[in-house]
Amino acid sequence: MTPSTSGSPSAARADGRAPDQLRPISITRGWSKQAEGSALIEFGNTRVLCTASFTEGVPRWLKGEGRGWVTAEYAMLPRATNTRSDRESVKGRIGGRTHEISRLIGRSLRSIIDTRALGENTIVLDCDVLQADGGTRTAAITGAFVALAEAVRWAKEQGLVELGAEPLVDTVSAVSVGIIDGVPMLDLPYVEDVRAETDMNVVVTGSGKFVEVQGTAEGAPFDRDELNSLLDLALIGTAQLADIQRETLAEALR
Amino acid sequence: MTPSTSGSPSAARADGRAPDQLRPISITRGWSKQAEGSALIEFGNTRVLCTASFTEGVPRWLKGEGRGWVTAEYAMLPRATNTRSDRESVKGRIGGRTHEISRLIGRSLRSIIDTRALGENTIVLDCDVLQADGGTRTAAITGAFVALAEAVRWAKEQGLVELGAEPLVDTVSAVSVGIIDGVPMLDLPYVEDVRAETDMNVVVTGSGKFVEVQGTAEGAPFDRDELNSLLDLALIGTAQLADIQRETLAEALR
Amino acid sequence: MTPSTSGSPSAARADGRAPDQLRPISITRGWSKQAEGSALIEFGNTRVLCTASFTEGVPRWLKGEGRGWVTAEYAMLPRATNTRSDRESVKGRIGGRTHEISRLIGRSLRSIIDTRALGENTIVLDCDVLQADGGTRTAAITGAFVALAEAVRWAKEQGLVELGAEPLVDTVSAVSVGIIDGVPMLDLPYVEDVRAETDMNVVVTGSGKFVEVQGTAEGAPFDRDELNSLLDLALIGTAQLADIQRETLAEALR
Amino acid sequence: MTPSTSGSPSAARADGRAPDQLRPISITRGWSKQAEGSALIEFGNTRVLCTASFTEGVPRWLKGEGRGWVTAEYAMLPRATNTRSDRESVKGRIGGRTHEISRLIGRSLRSIIDTRALGENTIVLDCDVLQADGGTRTAAITGAFVALAEAVRWAKEQGLVELGAEPLVDTVSAVSVGIIDGVPMLDLPYVEDVRAETDMNVVVTGSGKFVEVQGTAEGAPFDRDELNSLLDLALIGTAQLADIQRETLAEALR
Amino acid sequence: MTPSTSGSPSAARADGRAPDQLRPISITRGWSKQAEGSALIEFGNTRVLCTASFTEGVPRWLKGEGRGWVTAEYAMLPRATNTRSDRESVKGRIGGRTHEISRLIGRSLRSIIDTRALGENTIVLDCDVLQADGGTRTAAITGAFVALAEAVRWAKEQGLVELGAEPLVDTVSAVSVGIIDGVPMLDLPYVEDVRAETDMNVVVTGSGKFVEVQGTAEGAPFDRDELNSLLDLALIGTAQLADIQRETLAEALR
Amino acid sequence: MTPSTSGSPSAARADGRAPDQLRPISITRGWSKQAEGSALIEFGNTRVLCTASFTEGVPRWLKGEGRGWVTAEYAMLPRATNTRSDRESVKGRIGGRTHEISRLIGRSLRSIIDTRALGENTIVLDCDVLQADGGTRTAAITGAFVALAEAVRWAKEQGLVELGAEPLVDTVSAVSVGIIDGVPMLDLPYVEDVRAETDMNVVVTGSGKFVEVQGTAEGAPFDRDELNSLLDLALIGTAQLADIQRETLAEALR
Repeated sequence: MTPSTSGSPSAARADGRAPDQLRPISITRGWSKQAEGSALIEFGNTRVLCTASFTEGVPRWLKGEGRGWVTAEYAMLPRATNTRSDRESVKGRIGGRTHEISRLIGRSLRSIIDTRALGENTIVLDCDVLQADGGTRTAAITGAFVALAEAVRWAKEQGLVELGAEPLVDTVSAVSVGIIDGVPMLDLPYVEDVRAETDMNVVVTGSGKFVEVQGTAEGAPFDRDELNSLLDLALIGTAQLADIQRETLAEALR
Repeated sequence: MTPSTSGSPSAARADGRAPDQLRPISITRGWSKQAEGSALIEFGNTRVLCTASFTEGVPRWLKGEGRGWVTAEYAMLPRATNTRSDRESVKGRIGGRTHEISRLIGRSLRSIIDTRALGENTIVLDCDVLQADGGTRTAAITGAFVALAEAVRWAKEQGLVELGAEPLVDTVSAVSVGIIDGVPMLDLPYVEDVRAETDMNVVVTGSGKFVEVQGTAEGAPFDRDELNSLLDLALIGTAQLADIQRETLAEALR
Repeated sequence: MTPSTSGSPSAARADGRAPDQLRPISITRGWSKQAEGSALIEFGNTRVLCTASFTEGVPRWLKGEGRGWVTAEYAMLPRATNTRSDRESVKGRIGGRTHEISRLIGRSLRSIIDTRALGENTIVLDCDVLQADGGTRTAAITGAFVALAEAVRWAKEQGLVELGAEPLVDTVSAVSVGIIDGVPMLDLPYVEDVRAETDMNVVVTGSGKFVEVQGTAEGAPFDRDELNSLLDLALIGTAQLADIQRETLAEALR
Repeated sequence: MTPSTSGSPSAARADGRAPDQLRPISITRGWSKQAEGSALIEFGNTRVLCTASFTEGVPRWLKGEGRGWVTAEYAMLPRATNTRSDRESVKGRIGGRTHEISRLIGRSLRSIIDTRALGENTIVLDCDVLQADGGTRTAAITGAFVALAEAVRWAKEQGLVELGAEPLVDTVSAVSVGIIDGVPMLDLPYVEDVRAETDMNVVVTGSGKFVEVQGTAEGAPFDRDELNSLLDLALIGTAQLADIQRETLAEALR
Repeated sequence: MTPSTSGSPSAARADGRAPDQLRPISITRGWSKQAEGSALIEFGNTRVLCTASFTEGVPRWLKGEGRGWVTAEYAMLPRATNTRSDRESVKGRIGGRTHEISRLIGRSLRSIIDTRALGENTIVLDCDVLQADGGTRTAAITGAFVALAEAVRWAKEQGLVELGAEPLVDTVSAVSVGIIDGVPMLDLPYVEDVRAETDMNVVVTGSGKFVEVQGTAEGAPFDRDELNSLLDLALIGTAQLADIQRETLAEALR
Repeated sequence: MTPSTSGSPSAARADGRAPDQLRPISITRGWSKQAEGSALIEFGNTRVLCTASFTEGVPRWLKGEGRGWVTAEYAMLPRATNTRSDRESVKGRIGGRTHEISRLIGRSLRSIIDTRALGENTIVLDCDVLQADGGTRTAAITGAFVALAEAVRWAKEQGLVELGAEPLVDTVSAVSVGIIDGVPMLDLPYVEDVRAETDMNVVVTGSGKFVEVQGTAEGAPFDRDELNSLLDLALIGTAQLADIQRETLAEALR
């Protein structure tokens, strides 16, 4: 990656990273004492608290099917961002963006869950953005996986998941990529995100397969080559995130 | 595409189409007498009424910028589907799916609009699904473009858009693609949609560039090759839709 | 009616109709492929899509009574009218006018239904105004009856209504009447509706009895004679609508 | 009316009234010390508190037209009825019935107001049912008129309405009528209301003209003769109510 | 108390009361014919209608515990105050103040109820302010107790509460106290309330024990001595209110 | 306090504290990089993130008065507690408890603010409970003061508050106290809170004056002596909290 950082002035990033370099990633497992699983995840200044709540039973529409359910809710504290936003609870409605991200997180986690192995149990992931600096949805997915894995481990220890069953069939993480001044870049903070011509969120399993590919032309429509460069970058980033997830889960709990 | 339809029994589609074949497409321009632009679009049994409402002025946050605004709202009649759903107006809230699709349609149309050329005017696209049989969001985008183009033409005739300005920089259409029993297929009706392992909605300009690529692993995560086959199909379908849009707009209004 | 059209210039209607003449009426039965019954009804430029959804079972408060339930919901697409209105789903509340009309349609249909013969089944009528040009509620009632009759026929064919039972005890239709410049007129389009001193909606059975009489002095209070003239006109109009309904239902389905 | 009370046992009313007799009516003017006008009205056990709030200025859509505005809101205390209902404020939505009655009261009062004479001022009538025993909407209209008249008198005294202008062009009152066991009856309490085959609310000016006629076939559709008998009764009742209103307003305030 | 009224000019109250004197208190028991218990209570011009609705059974979360439930809802008519407020039902949400007072009334009443003696029954107290002039929440608590006691008596007569069980273990009443120009005063009307430096609502049982003490420094923080003077006054006032409650309940019902 | 900790076994606390001892208190100033002021405060396992958002200008009703405005919003993450609660944004309404605590925090902070010195500026305090173990409202008030003080300091540095003006006239902190098994105790964690017969939240300025005293008999009404013991304890606790606040604010920011 040396060429892109030296030869091209347009590739210079405000935080000095190479185009294919993640921000400093930190995952604090078990940050909350109340939840069955939890993780405080940081992608640079983006900080998301993910908790996993395990309950026996499933929603009514799924009863008696012998399968479990995993869902997610995403939200942002009013002053997570640079200027304060009104609370959605005060406005009395959830905005479209919040809905959309909650649904994305839920789908992403369900892609690596064997709901039969989970049994008739429900896990709700709450992803609350405490501080926002771009990439909150991808940080949320990556952190939520850790909280989910902890909750599954807890459920096994409690005997709430059948002996020998393994609800987690893979890991999953996500990263944002985008094209800025014509250069594809990995893991965009807010200042880059607003300048990106094309913005893509990619959710990838530990085994390198795609779960979600969501690319949007914010500025100008993009061609097949640009799409391919972005996917390449996303695979580099999610492979590293998968490693960090595995290390975090391997460490003994406090 | 001959091999896949003849050699592989799994590729047989209930409606007899080849995997790379669109459903019968029909666009009735000017279906509504009230709106500045309108189109009733049909993708097989999917039927969406798109109207474009032109108003002078822009939302407060855009005032004085010399630019216009294009936005969209998507909704479904309660009995558009096989079983009746409660009205969102009765429930008092708009669901996540509705929000998500409204936002997608808005972004798609803005990608081919030169908001400076539009001047400080607003166009709202309403896409109401009268009958649903899969692909309602892609039909909505494709039909909304026709309604939008009609409203722009109307505004020019009325002198509400500056002489010589051309707000439309390209056309835009959308199609769904998916993998069913391992075979990539174009334009999925409901019965195929529910069986698809991977489902992708692709929004493409008349010049063949991507505006949105939204791929979701409904069943199993997908690999790079599968992604590429789906994008190939989507480009075939949207090229045909662009032709139909152009023909529709060329015809004199009744 | 000859005198009033020839001798009195005030009786001249913009669309050339005689004071006691309906607008062109069109009913397309089975317009929707999804619903158990449906009709697209047109009173001139007013266009309402009526669907009937049949479900087994009744609301909780009616369980075990051996009787069925018929109810209705009325709504208007945002650009059905000359200027766009905000969606009630977006506002998060249903307006008073919408509620009032939904209740009127429900009551009107229940007046000609034998709920015992229907058995413990529910039929919901959705009346969505696609294009509005006055008289939307009366068109909705008239079209909803056709959709209801279709759904009842379907239920009989499916064996969901007891053999020999006849839930429909009569037909029902509705029309608006009003006094404009002192002249009573039948079936008011929007331009006449806003000018009417008195406006009345009358719902009448096929056998010529009143189900609802709702007269409102928009401009000046009205006397007994005016009331009587309006009722006379309403009976002329609803008798013709009843004939059209019967013909529509007699035709074989496409 | 002698024949119907003596000869026909079905005409016997639980409270001993003749078919054409009102319940005891009581209007306490100035019941509230806070409002510009107020009246506590009783139709038998039905008890409605009506207050009129006068404010300078009109809603935005009416500004600069030189005309005033009169509107009304109707509501019921949760335990006004025999069993407690949930509060609409707690449910977060206003029911269809509430909306419908609020609109009816507003229209009725506007029919006897000269909005030009009122000037650019607004009067809001609040009609809160403290105890309900049938006929709450008609009691509300009748009491609201008294509160309105008081508020107009207050505004004149304050010089808020132009010298010599007379916003009130007539009085207005309302009564319910219905057919029970084939006998037309005046002013139905709850026990009669639920048994009525046909139920009609009639709003009449002091000069005997109709403002609203709302007849509904609760049980069986009704014919022209029945309609005429009901209108006769309504005119008897509203004439008496108009007298009581005039007497109440003539008395000096306590 | 003579010294404080004669020697200190600052202690002069607009209505001529001594600092430790209640406003005229009036309680009309059984004001509503519909509820199992009711009272119209007046503290000067403050007028609150309290009804008690008795229903068999308890909320789901309490089922099978052998205990009853008592809860309360407080609300204000829109024109109870000097200027009209929007209805909470129209705004679609209940304000913080309303919630807070409803909860306070509920807690106050539960403090003197033996829920086991009540059995699995629910009593809902509705306190609707018809006219507001300060102290509405304390009037509501005091009046609600009377309505509650009536409902309990009714339930005993109906055999809905076990023979020999006594759900009421004490009486409860409430009063406001405040410091105005340095002088502690009892039972503040609106004009005093807005001027108070410190405002306190105190709920006390008939046996003189505290149920709630809610003191707020509206103007300047207060010290221990001021707090003690206020509590002294509150005990004087609530002792008198307890006497009035007992007398009211001793009288035979009309 | 020695007698109660040694002689009385009932005084033994699960966490080994003396009755008059606070839990370990920690305040991390500047925890959020986005807000003008922030503090993460911990009372044992209770953890609240407080941010202060400074904006120029005041709400409309305060414009032109030359005074500023301070307000607060309190909320709890869904899994802050031992079992997950539904989000208020999802329910579409804010609960009574949330409203009540938000109002309490706002009043508490306004008691030590000179709104004239603040000028026409607004500071919104957001107090989000990340983990709850009793005393969340008192921790929120104590932490919010630190965030507020930071925001005021920032505003002075920015020149947004007039030179020489001092908006903060005192410090403010809060603590809960309660009677458990007859023993008054300071700073109750959740396990003690649910067992308390009487529960009191006391808000006190740095100079030892009361801002709010909110005592509630959860179990049995309390007498004057008990009230006095609780106030004594509260003054001990808030004096210590005031010291910690001062130390925190004296430290240089990281």
